[in-house]
Amino acid sequence: MTSIPVPTLIAQSVLIEDDCVRILDRRKFPFERVWVRCDTHHDVAQAIKDMVTQSSGPFFAAAGGMVLAAREARGHTQPLEYLRTAGATLIATRPTNDQIARVVPAMLADAETALAAGEDLAEALWSAALRHGEGYLDRSRELGAYGAQLLRDGDVILTHCWAESYLTETVAAALRQGKNLRAYVTETRPYLQGARLTAESLAEMGVDTTLITDNMGAHVLSTGRVSALVTAADRVTMDGHVINKVGTLQLAVAAHAFTVPYYALVQHPDAEAPTAADVPMEERDGADVLHALGTRTASRLVRGYYPSFDVTPPRFVSAVATDRGRFSPYDLASYYATETG
Amino acid sequence: MTSIPVPTLIAQSVLIEDDCVRILDRRKFPFERVWVRCDTHHDVAQAIKDMVTQSSGPFFAAAGGMVLAAREARGHTQPLEYLRTAGATLIATRPTNDQIARVVPAMLADAETALAAGEDLAEALWSAALRHGEGYLDRSRELGAYGAQLLRDGDVILTHCWAESYLTETVAAALRQGKNLRAYVTETRPYLQGARLTAESLAEMGVDTTLITDNMGAHVLSTGRVSALVTAADRVTMDGHVINKVGTLQLAVAAHAFTVPYYALVQHPDAEAPTAADVPMEERDGADVLHALGTRTASRLVRGYYPSFDVTPPRFVSAVATDRGRFSPYDLASYYATETG
Repeated sequence: MTSIPVPTLIAQSVLIEDDCVRILDRRKFPFERVWVRCDTHHDVAQAIKDMVTQSSGPFFAAAGGMVLAAREARGHTQPLEYLRTAGATLIATRPTNDQIARVVPAMLADAETALAAGEDLAEALWSAALRHGEGYLDRSRELGAYGAQLLRDGDVILTHCWAESYLTETVAAALRQGKNLRAYVTETRPYLQGARLTAESLAEMGVDTTLITDNMGAHVLSTGRVSALVTAADRVTMDGHVINKVGTLQLAVAAHAFTVPYYALVQHPDAEAPTAADVPMEERDGADVLHALGTRTASRLVRGYYPSFDVTPPRFVSAVATDRGRFSPYDLASYYATETG
Repeated sequence: MTSIPVPTLIAQSVLIEDDCVRILDRRKFPFERVWVRCDTHHDVAQAIKDMVTQSSGPFFAAAGGMVLAAREARGHTQPLEYLRTAGATLIATRPTNDQIARVVPAMLADAETALAAGEDLAEALWSAALRHGEGYLDRSRELGAYGAQLLRDGDVILTHCWAESYLTETVAAALRQGKNLRAYVTETRPYLQGARLTAESLAEMGVDTTLITDNMGAHVLSTGRVSALVTAADRVTMDGHVINKVGTLQLAVAAHAFTVPYYALVQHPDAEAPTAADVPMEERDGADVLHALGTRTASRLVRGYYPSFDVTPPRFVSAVATDRGRFSPYDLASYYATETG
């Protein structure tokens, strides 16, 4: 079996240190490799809000934020109360991305256990953060193994935004199976995650990678240049709606129109979201749409509108790859039915 | 009837002067208002190739180029031959955009007439260029009057790239009819014609205008924010395929999926293109995709791909507005059947 390394710097982009948390600034990567230093959980919350990190980055950053909060809580009479407030602050940063909402409650439970056992809260949460991080990457590897089975030798995948370990593990598993893959990547305005993070990471993995702007997806789908659309999902609802970076919807609709399969990658469907109306949809500052990498790109006479996510109905989704296997978007209850608990 | 002025600078962006042709540099508008001076028809051809002007700009620029060629031909023994070669050079600059291929033969015919009548060739072609320009704008006004009838009071239109007088005349006619319109505009990477030219022009006309990036079209269509998709077409084939700036296809497919009508604006269907295979499809330098306004925006590890145009099949087109009325994309032969000539 060939060894296919997944890109490391962008994957390990949150570092929990003795006195701070450092977050790789993905707004500048790969042109600059700058780390944002966070001394408090408030700094972490601000960094997440400011999009220093995104995709699965907030999972790791929020875990780091909880470690900082545990250190801040030293000497507090009600440390658990302090942690709960800190956790709520972190969760409030990104309503649609539910990674934070998963790791925070887990770490609050860890905190209760540590306190009951008389352990040092900060040390216990530091260990817990590393353990949850490992668990996250393990689940991505399992997802990747299932996702890779959807890809055929010679496939040309089209992907959008930065699907992080969901994508890199899927591609790595396919390459290990000896499948030859090529990729088209959309640049993903306004933050250019595709042009910067995905393009860099897939190319580092040795995948022949071509960048297109966000208006070219249907063209490459309609002309037979692409044989599978593959994206991550921020959430998949129990009735099969895929919520992901804005732009996913129009690629999925075009893929469907030109009979190219669309595969969504997510560790698990969201048991707490029966349908799309149950997921809060973030909008970000419309001014972002008027600029690229800080340079004004638009007429000064207009406003910008920046919905961060869109909702792809299940009729445009061919399969959902998870850490427990592949599912039809109409059969996601089976994910939990296979639970062996 | 209210007076609705259409934006003038961008509309009159080719000036034929005593000793040169000046072309407004649309790559920099509206941030800088710079004119590119062309002393010869070769300079004009280079400017068109370099995208100094686009949309209907090449029509006016090529007409100016033919005037310069007529001046260059003074003293030539075979001035008509010289003009034919110059015309071929101008036509070769933009194979998909057929505006040049229409005005050049018309001016060659004018040249023959002038020579037969013993007129000064350069003076005659200068007059002809102005006459053809007026004719072009007249046809756009006729198109606009028909296009406006497709729009309802309160419509929110989504448009892509820069549809120039086709769009401004349609919007102006609708506003004169007392219809209230708002607009969403896609930024249209990589040259940002939407963010710069369309956004500026519609806002100048008093239309409430919101800019989105090229990945947000399906989202605004799916959420009911937009009630009509309206774009120009570089060409419409006789069997109803719309060839326009890349990105039109995915908007049309999404509009169809979410039952929003798509109206294509074109002065006339292309009688010489029975179907899309008859239209040469331009590709431009992939490096353009890796930059925005001259700044590198993409990983240095990847290549870019830049198909300039895409093909929207008639099943995604609700109506085609022309200078002779509105037609179903399946009934374009009627355009020529109504010919009274």
